[in-house]
Amino acid sequence: MAFGWIDEQAELRRRAGLVRTLRPRPADSPLLDLASNDYLGLAHHPEVTEGAAAAARTWGGGSTGSRLVTGTTELHTELERELADFCGFEAALVFSSGYAANLAAVTTLGPHGSLIVSDALNHASLIDGCRLARGTTQVVGHAAPDAVRKALGTHEGPAVVVCDTVFSVDGDAAPLAALAEACRERGAGLLVDDAHGLGVLGDGGRGAPQAAGLAGADDVVVTVTLSKSLGSQGGAVLGPARVVDHLVNAARTFIFDTGLAPAAAGAALAALRLLRREPERAERARAVAAELHARLTAAGLEAVRPDAAVVSVRAPSPEGAVRWAAACRAAGLAVGCFRPPSVPDGVSRLRLTARADLSGAEIERAVQVIGETRP
Amino acid sequence: MAFGWIDEQAELRRRAGLVRTLRPRPADSPLLDLASNDYLGLAHHPEVTEGAAAAARTWGGGSTGSRLVTGTTELHTELERELADFCGFEAALVFSSGYAANLAAVTTLGPHGSLIVSDALNHASLIDGCRLARGTTQVVGHAAPDAVRKALGTHEGPAVVVCDTVFSVDGDAAPLAALAEACRERGAGLLVDDAHGLGVLGDGGRGAPQAAGLAGADDVVVTVTLSKSLGSQGGAVLGPARVVDHLVNAARTFIFDTGLAPAAAGAALAALRLLRREPERAERARAVAAELHARLTAAGLEAVRPDAAVVSVRAPSPEGAVRWAAACRAAGLAVGCFRPPSVPDGVSRLRLTARADLSGAEIERAVQVIGETRP
Ligand SMILES: Cc1ncc(COP(=O)(O)O)c(C=O)c1O
Ligand SMILES: Cc1ncc(COP(=O)(O)O)c(C=O)c1O
Repeated sequence: MAFGWIDEQAELRRRAGLVRTLRPRPADSPLLDLASNDYLGLAHHPEVTEGAAAAARTWGGGSTGSRLVTGTTELHTELERELADFCGFEAALVFSSGYAANLAAVTTLGPHGSLIVSDALNHASLIDGCRLARGTTQVVGHAAPDAVRKALGTHEGPAVVVCDTVFSVDGDAAPLAALAEACRERGAGLLVDDAHGLGVLGDGGRGAPQAAGLAGADDVVVTVTLSKSLGSQGGAVLGPARVVDHLVNAARTFIFDTGLAPAAAGAALAALRLLRREPERAERARAVAAELHARLTAAGLEAVRPDAAVVSVRAPSPEGAVRWAAACRAAGLAVGCFRPPSVPDGVSRLRLTARADLSGAEIERAVQVIGETRP
Repeated sequence: MAFGWIDEQAELRRRAGLVRTLRPRPADSPLLDLASNDYLGLAHHPEVTEGAAAAARTWGGGSTGSRLVTGTTELHTELERELADFCGFEAALVFSSGYAANLAAVTTLGPHGSLIVSDALNHASLIDGCRLARGTTQVVGHAAPDAVRKALGTHEGPAVVVCDTVFSVDGDAAPLAALAEACRERGAGLLVDDAHGLGVLGDGGRGAPQAAGLAGADDVVVTVTLSKSLGSQGGAVLGPARVVDHLVNAARTFIFDTGLAPAAAGAALAALRLLRREPERAERARAVAAELHARLTAAGLEAVRPDAAVVSVRAPSPEGAVRWAAACRAAGLAVGCFRPPSVPDGVSRLRLTARADLSGAEIERAVQVIGETRP
């Protein structure tokens, strides 16, 4: 039977205890949320949701076409201008998702004949970008500028180094300054995915590249998502105008995809303006993460020191992680549960996100629940 | 210099007259729109834009996480249920874009060891899906069931045939019934992208698979987009529940992507309900396309007989197409202009879309402008 092989795979997953199911949430979930990527607590901010509503009313429910046909509104341009300005880059290009932005950036900056050097723990969208790109990918050890230098030394011709700024699973930051140095020695480009840095790192949340002194550099390209700190949906590529022009002309996930919905652009723009006005939100997210880490460690749990707003806590096993997360949920706390095959290193963990709007009491409650439900 | 090679490519594009630029549109564009994919004229319908606005208010500006973590709301589930029900399939899974849905479907249904048979004129997102999939892709001639049959005959083990239902460039329909027959002879699965069929073909817009008697078949999987007839953003995969479960567990663009923004889900749901209530919209889009084609042909232009709501008109050359589209624009008419490298066959054309809400006078005016500006 067609698709019969699917049942065998499903059976294997069942036996391994790795079945994933969707858990739809109601609008008024009673759970304390330490699982979302809403780092600044903006997804439900009235300015953000009104930004979405007003944009839908003015610009329509969808953008109606490819960005190159009817899908570019003045709202998209405004968002691109403000994003570029905020992060300190010459130009920006908005996509329907961060995933699409990453596919676009890697494929267009890693053309035939080029070398793409990719960190072993990069996000799935960067990896898929490498697989789609015509260049040759060399995967190097995690956060290892010397390995990057060595890889670059093996190649003549265009090269680009591709890396998350903050790794989504463990929340550790990439050594951006050292990576940029390794790239510059060889005239290679640096492409970094600041999905978990924007809104959290840098001055007032301007992102990890700004924090590392790389904003506006002509050999640095940054991708961001609008779906985490900015509480919306979508992604963007930031960089020199010539790079952005190149993407407009060559990126398949730009040319052959419908433009971002106006409501998503409007929500992201509202969030960006809010962040400009309230830059302390970024610092607060980092402080919450640090406090979470300190308290978890004090409670005897094994947590990774956070470089941004993600706090990763080791679990004893995949099943242990699932049971732990379920027990947290039963006690009113939503946490992320990462386990194989969605963690590249095979290590299962709880993943906590530090929202800027968590109160001290909420942090305390979260740590207490996590400690008490420990498997 | 890093990224220096980009300038050479830009120069080549300039010399070839193939530079693409973005043309941001205002909210109150005076142009008559025959360029968007808003086939039913729903993107600006107040029920659709209010659907977006209400969803943003209730559910937030973004879905805040992967569908497997916090990104599934009850709104997503409702949309999935109604989409599946409308199109006549057991289950549906919503993605952040049609592009992402296609990547998901092809990669998860074309695993290692399988054969993927792909139509030569498939959409970029299906092609990228083939390139990302672990199976072996065999590209076959356009709309050629016999070639498909022959390709399937070369392979033992799982196989899937991948095809647009309506080809986005020329607007011609795939021979779905014959393809399904070829698949069934070999126990292969059929995966079709109904991006341009949903809302236009089938009873009341239920799509090309329904029109071909394939709705609900256990060996057929359909992808759709929410960004064309439904006037929103997003995509979905429709099929047997076991296939959808498989995607939940295995599709990288599902697992590692933020869930669709609530506003987009709300807009699509409102559009779907509207279409159910006003099924004549689908028929009207087809009638407008037929009228456009008849009048263009009567005016001596070379247009492809439309199978859905896309009408393709031959242009003499890439430059001719660009000049023609620009002249239409100057005369108040927005049309699509497709030329290399974004047309797989190298043929440049104007691409007109037949919106259900075009009046007879608007159709007449469009045809007049196109005829008068002919290069
Ligand atoms: C590091 C990283 N990059 C890219 C993405 C994709 O962004 P989006 O969800 O906006 O598609 C994610 C998560 O979703 C991520 O964690
Ligand atoms: C045939 C086809 N499939 C898929 C897509 C992608 O859908 P989306 O724009 O929703 O990503 C498009 C156009 O955008 C298309 O024309």
